Amino acid sequence: MDSQLQGDLPAVPTRNLKLVIAYEGTRYHGWQRQAPGTDTVQERLELAAGRVLGHPVKLNGAGRTDAGVHAAGQVANIATPNFSIPVVNFRKALNAKLPGDIAVLSANCVSPLFHASRSARAKTYRYRIYTATTPDVAAANWVYHYWHGLSAERMARAAWRLVGTHDFRGLAFAAEQRENTVRTILACSVCQAGREIHIFVTGTGFLYKMVRNLSGTLLEIGRGHWEEDRIDQILATRDRAYAGPTLPAGGLCMMSVDYPPELEKP
Amino acid sequence: MDSQLQGDLPAVPTRNLKLVIAYEGTRYHGWQRQAPGTDTVQERLELAAGRVLGHPVKLNGAGRTDAGVHAAGQVANIATPNFSIPVVNFRKALNAKLPGDIAVLSANCVSPLFHASRSARAKTYRYRIYTATTPDVAAANWVYHYWHGLSAERMARAAWRLVGTHDFRGLAFAAEQRENTVRTILACSVCQAGREIHIFVTGTGFLYKMVRNLSGTLLEIGRGHWEEDRIDQILATRDRAYAGPTLPAGGLCMMSVDYPPELEKP
Repeated sequence: MDSQLQGDLPAVPTRNLKLVIAYEGTRYHGWQRQAPGTDTVQERLELAAGRVLGHPVKLNGAGRTDAGVHAAGQVANIATPNFSIPVVNFRKALNAKLPGDIAVLSANCVSPLFHASRSARAKTYRYRIYTATTPDVAAANWVYHYWHGLSAERMARAAWRLVGTHDFRGLAFAAEQRENTVRTILACSVCQAGREIHIFVTGTGFLYKMVRNLSGTLLEIGRGHWEEDRIDQILATRDRAYAGPTLPAGGLCMMSVDYPPELEKP
Repeated sequence: MDSQLQGDLPAVPTRNLKLVIAYEGTRYHGWQRQAPGTDTVQERLELAAGRVLGHPVKLNGAGRTDAGVHAAGQVANIATPNFSIPVVNFRKALNAKLPGDIAVLSANCVSPLFHASRSARAKTYRYRIYTATTPDVAAANWVYHYWHGLSAERMARAAWRLVGTHDFRGLAFAAEQRENTVRTILACSVCQAGREIHIFVTGTGFLYKMVRNLSGTLLEIGRGHWEEDRIDQILATRDRAYAGPTLPAGGLCMMSVDYPPELEKP
């Protein structure tokens, strides 16, 4: 085949691939790629995808989870000019090149307009608190262990007070620099799940460490240290000093990200 | 109180404490204490118990699990001349001083004749094989991932052939030095547990790496590479070359240890 003919072949179209990803964050320095030599989930995925696709890959992730934070439904997208294999094979090939604590749960061709971070309408996180006295060693990296008595009911009632559009500066990282700290929480629920208490929170976006601070605040209310209206004080004063401690990263898991359905089609 | 009177106080009797212990072995260099600076489960427990009891502690463990192997029911005993607190408080104090991936599930005063290793009548191990194609990231350290088709039924039928008193040299570590490689397997069962296959094996004692070699052999039979009578060949020839690969440590968990009931009483 001569070069003239090759030039006339129809170009393989650029594809935009949406990946749903699960990982245990314990041994990674968070999601986001950093300096070389720092082990991150994003870099592991980019290297694996690059090997499968045969070109350097840059991933857009929906959320930058911190070191030790897990994901059951992180989302990322890849634009690739070079996609000629069935997506199911792509997913399997990717998983074969990833360590066991990172898994691609699904891969789909989506709209060229889909962007994992900018297109996201809502994200859901879960915080797990393990409440039995004897530790569950198999879940040690996945739960915060607190066994001095917690009322899930009190926590659930307080959680409702967070729902809505509020200035969440009081629940942000103390050194938060952003001007705009108004966010919308769409749902916040607390349930007893056997020997654990789970906090589920869905929002359009979150400030740095907001979910862990919110969980620490609900814990203080659940153990009876504060009343439920503490939430209103934090929202009114916007003062981090009123909120509870930042709970450890390991209890937190990014559960899912919601997108407009029209962007999820090729 | 003068020293004369102190000498007349009734001595606190020496107690023999039986501990049942769970741990995730991932980040430890196995159970057995080694050179200082090598992180082992035994050393962590001895240091924690020493701090609670106020004297240096030496633990006898029922089994020396390898690096990466877990336990749901490892057993150890401590002889202490200095035991004056309720055992339930001792257990809680110990857990408070242990990392989250090691937990003391129970502590009981037992017969002075009880020795965790020498008194053991039987030990049970479980090997977990995860068979779905997409990895389960939360279980990555606890399972061996094999997704190319396995028949639990074939494995179960082959497993029965291992039961009995046999020379298990063919399933031992290749460089096994012990003269006597005869052991008794009391039970060996294989079951499908959702997306996993579990191998349970109970025996009076096991050779080094025997359970992982036995699991690797059952896997070869389960995937159709060998027939079930391969087990008979391994037992007859005593040749390690006939057996399957040593499966990774992470899938293995020490489940329980059985003792004569009379030794379990104070």
